[in-house]
Amino acid sequence: MILVIGAGPAGRLAAMYLARAGREVTLVERGGLGGQCLHYGCMVVCALSDVARTIRYAAALADLGVVDRPPRVSYPKLMEETGNILATITRVLDEETRSAGPVTIVRGEGSLDGRIPSIDGRPVEAEAVLAATGSRPVITCEEGADLPGVVTAHTLPAWKVLPARIVVVGGGVMAAEFAHVFHAFGSKITVLARSRFLKELDPPQLRNQALRELEGVEICEHSPLLRICGSGRAEAVVAGGKGGEREIPADGVFLATGLAPNSGMIRGVEKGPLGEVVVDDRMRTSVPGVWAAGDLAGPPYLTPVARMEGLVAAGNMLGGDRRMDYRCIPQSLTLMNEFAWCSLPDGPSAGTGCPSPAGPFSFWAVPRANTGWTGLRASPEDGRILSAALASPGAAIVASYLSFLMRTGCTVQDFDEFLEVHPTTDGAFSLARYLGEWMRFRKE
Amino acid sequence: MILVIGAGPAGRLAAMYLARAGREVTLVERGGLGGQCLHYGCMVVCALSDVARTIRYAAALADLGVVDRPPRVSYPKLMEETGNILATITRVLDEETRSAGPVTIVRGEGSLDGRIPSIDGRPVEAEAVLAATGSRPVITCEEGADLPGVVTAHTLPAWKVLPARIVVVGGGVMAAEFAHVFHAFGSKITVLARSRFLKELDPPQLRNQALRELEGVEICEHSPLLRICGSGRAEAVVAGGKGGEREIPADGVFLATGLAPNSGMIRGVEKGPLGEVVVDDRMRTSVPGVWAAGDLAGPPYLTPVARMEGLVAAGNMLGGDRRMDYRCIPQSLTLMNEFAWCSLPDGPSAGTGCPSPAGPFSFWAVPRANTGWTGLRASPEDGRILSAALASPGAAIVASYLSFLMRTGCTVQDFDEFLEVHPTTDGAFSLARYLGEWMRFRKE
Repeated sequence: MILVIGAGPAGRLAAMYLARAGREVTLVERGGLGGQCLHYGCMVVCALSDVARTIRYAAALADLGVVDRPPRVSYPKLMEETGNILATITRVLDEETRSAGPVTIVRGEGSLDGRIPSIDGRPVEAEAVLAATGSRPVITCEEGADLPGVVTAHTLPAWKVLPARIVVVGGGVMAAEFAHVFHAFGSKITVLARSRFLKELDPPQLRNQALRELEGVEICEHSPLLRICGSGRAEAVVAGGKGGEREIPADGVFLATGLAPNSGMIRGVEKGPLGEVVVDDRMRTSVPGVWAAGDLAGPPYLTPVARMEGLVAAGNMLGGDRRMDYRCIPQSLTLMNEFAWCSLPDGPSAGTGCPSPAGPFSFWAVPRANTGWTGLRASPEDGRILSAALASPGAAIVASYLSFLMRTGCTVQDFDEFLEVHPTTDGAFSLARYLGEWMRFRKE
Repeated sequence: MILVIGAGPAGRLAAMYLARAGREVTLVERGGLGGQCLHYGCMVVCALSDVARTIRYAAALADLGVVDRPPRVSYPKLMEETGNILATITRVLDEETRSAGPVTIVRGEGSLDGRIPSIDGRPVEAEAVLAATGSRPVITCEEGADLPGVVTAHTLPAWKVLPARIVVVGGGVMAAEFAHVFHAFGSKITVLARSRFLKELDPPQLRNQALRELEGVEICEHSPLLRICGSGRAEAVVAGGKGGEREIPADGVFLATGLAPNSGMIRGVEKGPLGEVVVDDRMRTSVPGVWAAGDLAGPPYLTPVARMEGLVAAGNMLGGDRRMDYRCIPQSLTLMNEFAWCSLPDGPSAGTGCPSPAGPFSFWAVPRANTGWTGLRASPEDGRILSAALASPGAAIVASYLSFLMRTGCTVQDFDEFLEVHPTTDGAFSLARYLGEWMRFRKE
């Protein structure tokens, strides 16, 4: 039997892979199948974003008189029905996992001490172990973080109604996404970013597009959260920064200040400074017979990376020799548009950018000249695509395929043979063709 | 000077390519830049679909109580604002075309007689000619098609209000798309298909998904339109078929019975049975120095094919040797989901299919188990992907990249290295991985 601890994206995909290969697998999980991604992360954001984006697109239509008015959200019902759908998806994942082969799913606390795994404290025999216990929100604020009204993505259901004034703490993707949806639902939002907000968005045009889509949200940069105040529940936050302390009234505080590996129950293996289990590119830990994958193995904390690490670990547990390739990982952010970007750090590049084309779910953004932005850079030597940055509906899909193509050395000239479906919101293929023409005619 | 007749997707992209290469180009167009695709085709459908899909997604949310109610459309305002946006896009295309290089845009009637082109009947000198005059709707009904209330995609603005009862005539993609939007806007819809409705949708699961998304639309197969009746305006249609004649009351009739090449003004070159200008795979006509591209050169009548034909013609006009590759052209249909499919006719295949994953703009379809469907087939010999069929939001983008990968021989095993963004509605990459695992473990 192979033991997999944690049924998030890493553990579950590894378990299914091993089962399809005919191996007996025990998959132990203390929560629901799907992990943080399904229950507190990606899919929750997707649920809320879909409603926010539908309301905002309808609002754009209403501004033109094309429809009478945008729909109004019922936040308690939204959260209740989101929970129902997540439960449905959990059941689907359960069926899918069991149908892969000889997988036993055990509800319990998995742990590890060196080579010895345990379930609910009782040691079990396993020919090999994959540790994939994920990550959890980091709470950096020492004062007031336990007041009612203060939540993270994990405790969001504690808000029974949507607070009228929300302070979102954090400067990254998750802070931006929750700020966007709560603002679309009608709350007054203040974002406190410890340093620069959305600093990972590059080039500047992409970040500017994101800021434009967060219009109406107050963004305070270089404003660390010092404490949360209130008698009985959160009533205000105090932010620091160059101008001194500043108090911001709040009916709710949403903490999105990063993640840390869930490695408390994984002992006797080498760990790094974040508490992450140290692995090599084959996902082997310091203990022979023990593999680790997903958020437990440290950043980037992304579902697709976790999935692939799980598959790489599983392949190697079966005696294969697969290595993780961390180049060109596509990253994303969902506001009104999807934002997605990826790059290869491979030397000088020449590039271009322009507004994303009007297409499904951006046609009606044309009157505001707000269809998004697409940028592409390629090597002027050989035309290899080196970076892509996209803001448009569907950008996440485009970036997935572009990063795949980029890792295999695809060039802008290759796009001469690209036969798209029309219309889409993909601006990348036409920029690739444009760069290809530029290189061709420059050389002649 | 090189003369390009017609500024639709084929002519405009060819003109820009030639101009970027530094060649003097005259681009003559009798209507607006962008051709049928922009003014009567793809982009009009996109405008209407975006509103229809927003209303239907909001309706799904309202059914769950998540929002209060879906927005209501104002059809006259919708058509007016669609026209305004199309005018804006036309201006953008005009700027983009002129900025490519030495292009002169002439508003007028281009024509050709053998090697001699004319503008508004006056012969002009040109070192080479590209004919790209597009296509127009075919009207097969001989009786009543000229009654007020009868429209095609080209004359749609003649409906000042949306008719309460609409008969859509046609069994293909365009008939399905307009039936879907008019139904979403509240009209009672009957579709008359001469043979089988949406017979190009393959496999059956894809077609079944489309029929499910057209629930509430009455679809009459094997029911040819015989005549349209009415005194002063269309009041009913008479359909034939096995059961004899049948009269269907109608306040409006929408004809979507196919396209034919606009080749009346192109004379002295060899033509085929549809009136299309005959070309070889380098887009050369029977007359040296005359090229043709786009719908004028016959089916498939698709914008991306027209674009590529224009670029191939332009490359060859500059002395290059480019050939059209018509394999694996992705086709599409937009209902609530996007539908897209493509295939290589390369021997036996093994495949699988399943509901598309929940993601942006399909999360709230989970309660109705209506997230779409994705199917993939690959060669059991070497894993090359041979066909893909997708119904999901974003399917058009997925199919664009899949067809590109398929033409270059991509295998399901290659998808081991695919690092997706999560969540998306793309079900193809996980099916590819699944097939890859199946082939791997089957062999061992």
